[in-house]
Amino acid sequence: MIYLDNSATTQPLPEAAQAAARAMTDVWGNPSALHDGGLDALELLDESRKAVAKALGCTPAELYFTSGGTAADNTAIFGAALARRRAGNRVVTTSAEHPAVARACDRLEALGCEVVRLPARADGGFELSALEEALSDKTILVSCMAVNNELGTITDIPAVSRVVRRCAKNALFHVDAVQAFGKLPFRADKCGADLVAVSAHKIHGIKGAGALYVKKGVRVEPFLVGGGQERGLVSGTEPMPAIAAFAEAAKRIGDPAQHLAHARALRSALTDALADCPHVAFNSPADGLPYIVNLSLTGVPSQPAVNALCEMGVYVSAGSACKRGHRSEVLTAVHLPPERIDSAIRVSFSRFNTVEEAYAAAEAIRKTIERIRR
Amino acid sequence: MIYLDNSATTQPLPEAAQAAARAMTDVWGNPSALHDGGLDALELLDESRKAVAKALGCTPAELYFTSGGTAADNTAIFGAALARRRAGNRVVTTSAEHPAVARACDRLEALGCEVVRLPARADGGFELSALEEALSDKTILVSCMAVNNELGTITDIPAVSRVVRRCAKNALFHVDAVQAFGKLPFRADKCGADLVAVSAHKIHGIKGAGALYVKKGVRVEPFLVGGGQERGLVSGTEPMPAIAAFAEAAKRIGDPAQHLAHARALRSALTDALADCPHVAFNSPADGLPYIVNLSLTGVPSQPAVNALCEMGVYVSAGSACKRGHRSEVLTAVHLPPERIDSAIRVSFSRFNTVEEAYAAAEAIRKTIERIRR
Repeated sequence: MIYLDNSATTQPLPEAAQAAARAMTDVWGNPSALHDGGLDALELLDESRKAVAKALGCTPAELYFTSGGTAADNTAIFGAALARRRAGNRVVTTSAEHPAVARACDRLEALGCEVVRLPARADGGFELSALEEALSDKTILVSCMAVNNELGTITDIPAVSRVVRRCAKNALFHVDAVQAFGKLPFRADKCGADLVAVSAHKIHGIKGAGALYVKKGVRVEPFLVGGGQERGLVSGTEPMPAIAAFAEAAKRIGDPAQHLAHARALRSALTDALADCPHVAFNSPADGLPYIVNLSLTGVPSQPAVNALCEMGVYVSAGSACKRGHRSEVLTAVHLPPERIDSAIRVSFSRFNTVEEAYAAAEAIRKTIERIRR
Repeated sequence: MIYLDNSATTQPLPEAAQAAARAMTDVWGNPSALHDGGLDALELLDESRKAVAKALGCTPAELYFTSGGTAADNTAIFGAALARRRAGNRVVTTSAEHPAVARACDRLEALGCEVVRLPARADGGFELSALEEALSDKTILVSCMAVNNELGTITDIPAVSRVVRRCAKNALFHVDAVQAFGKLPFRADKCGADLVAVSAHKIHGIKGAGALYVKKGVRVEPFLVGGGQERGLVSGTEPMPAIAAFAEAAKRIGDPAQHLAHARALRSALTDALADCPHVAFNSPADGLPYIVNLSLTGVPSQPAVNALCEMGVYVSAGSACKRGHRSEVLTAVHLPPERIDSAIRVSFSRFNTVEEAYAAAEAIRKTIERIRR
């Protein structure tokens, strides 16, 4: 099996799975309990917070665990809009966001906010001049992603932050960094954002945990309300097994800059091997994150392509895995022709993939085209 | 170790932990992915849904996985209020709810709803006549718990439902059944509720999963928004390890009526052994759920009592584990004198506790009183 759907989910590291197992069989207390069973769990929670905060580049006090990336994005967006509702009404985002951000902004709009969606360029990015025009003192929130989940487009977050600070002094700036965490070198506390969302299962942790960075001094309202866990921001008993696994994955995240060089080699192997193939069109920008290669196979619909590749042991996704059976919103937003959208597949690498796997995937893609176009 | 804090969290069953491990090391795909890795995960998700639905007494189509009990309660309350907002403005709940319900209702109030909190009787319950008075055609939501998490008070849900149907034809009826699931015999689809919230880690699953029953034909708006998982109601990649563990725990939930007889024996052992102790006052109602025994140790503050018991290997909670360091809202709502509240501890059994453990706990409580009052 050659697993190349790492932007959808990653294989948990053995150490992450072991840490989760320990939180199920050994340290299984409720961290809010006052007896030793609770205190042991609280210690595990604190240690986990330190590990994830270190990997993300912030203090443990700035890190809040959630049930995943979507919950982190929702907490950031609804929490910021609620906290800043007296300062204005405008929310600025882009037309190529992940649904966790896009649907949250849609809901804010339904509840009375004015939502501006910056048009996506062909590469999936947006113009800073358009952002600047959309901002004012009445803007309460700006939300964009660090890396596009379907195309790999990289946003220059510090540059966006400078425009936000200059043109929207009352706005909080939220970054969906789910696809960037561990893959691009950045520190949450140095990137210029107020809020940063990440997910455990995209970095070889397990499903069921994420985290939200909230810059020191920034206040957002809670989204999930109840017992007041996570210092009041995220209620509900903490998902300890997934949090413990997240911490182990974070500890092993390594040097993103070094992994990036490997990812470039993986992408080159794939794209070079397919360069002379007339039925392959690359949708990802050349300066995008090399872990994500979106390509269209002319005349080959996505689903049969995914199936054919699967039969050959190569796992890729049709567009994004996040919404089964729907036409990609991102590829629509960048105005790809419908036939390119409907024949798009996404190859997404992890640092554990090999160049040999990338070549094998290219070969399987060639065979898929031959087989289905015949 | 004698673990008697099962209302805070339970020890995961080995089978539950094994199922979670399998979802980390074997079936770790994203259930939204279209390749075999995704399809295997989707099959596990479907099988898990069947198992939990069967234990809860509903169809799989009526069951939605969440990240826990709090997320299920929040989804029910905010989702119902949003779905019914055109029908009225009034929400009716009680003054002795879990924070996941109480804080959600507080927020609805802050957003403009009229929230009526039925006064709690001394036993933690409320009068149906008070409920009837509070209801009208403008009531959009009624929310109460099946079993009180601190006192064990049992609410007659079918009786509440009859009043709601008669007096509030536009209301949805939500039941927080987190403490009742597996402990009281009931079927979600026969209890008269529209919405029922449960949690995995209270039934010997693991932390990080819960479920919301939504009666066939009832529509609530999503709370977490994004990729549209859980048929649009609960977005975010499903917490598969916790869901798989939930299913295994649900399969082994057994016959609640039979377990109840055992729980009565546990309670009797504890209360009989302490009956002649002048410094023990029982706060739980005699007709409450026998799994929960709330008692005050005259002149012994809760925290030192919990610590002393912990040193003797007996784990209990001070009030509720859900909000560290705060005076119990439930015990305040039932108008217990402050000194009774501040000296309250909660013993909560699981079906795996033994009568010997209950006797040993009683002995440890006696020693605690002697030691601290001296």
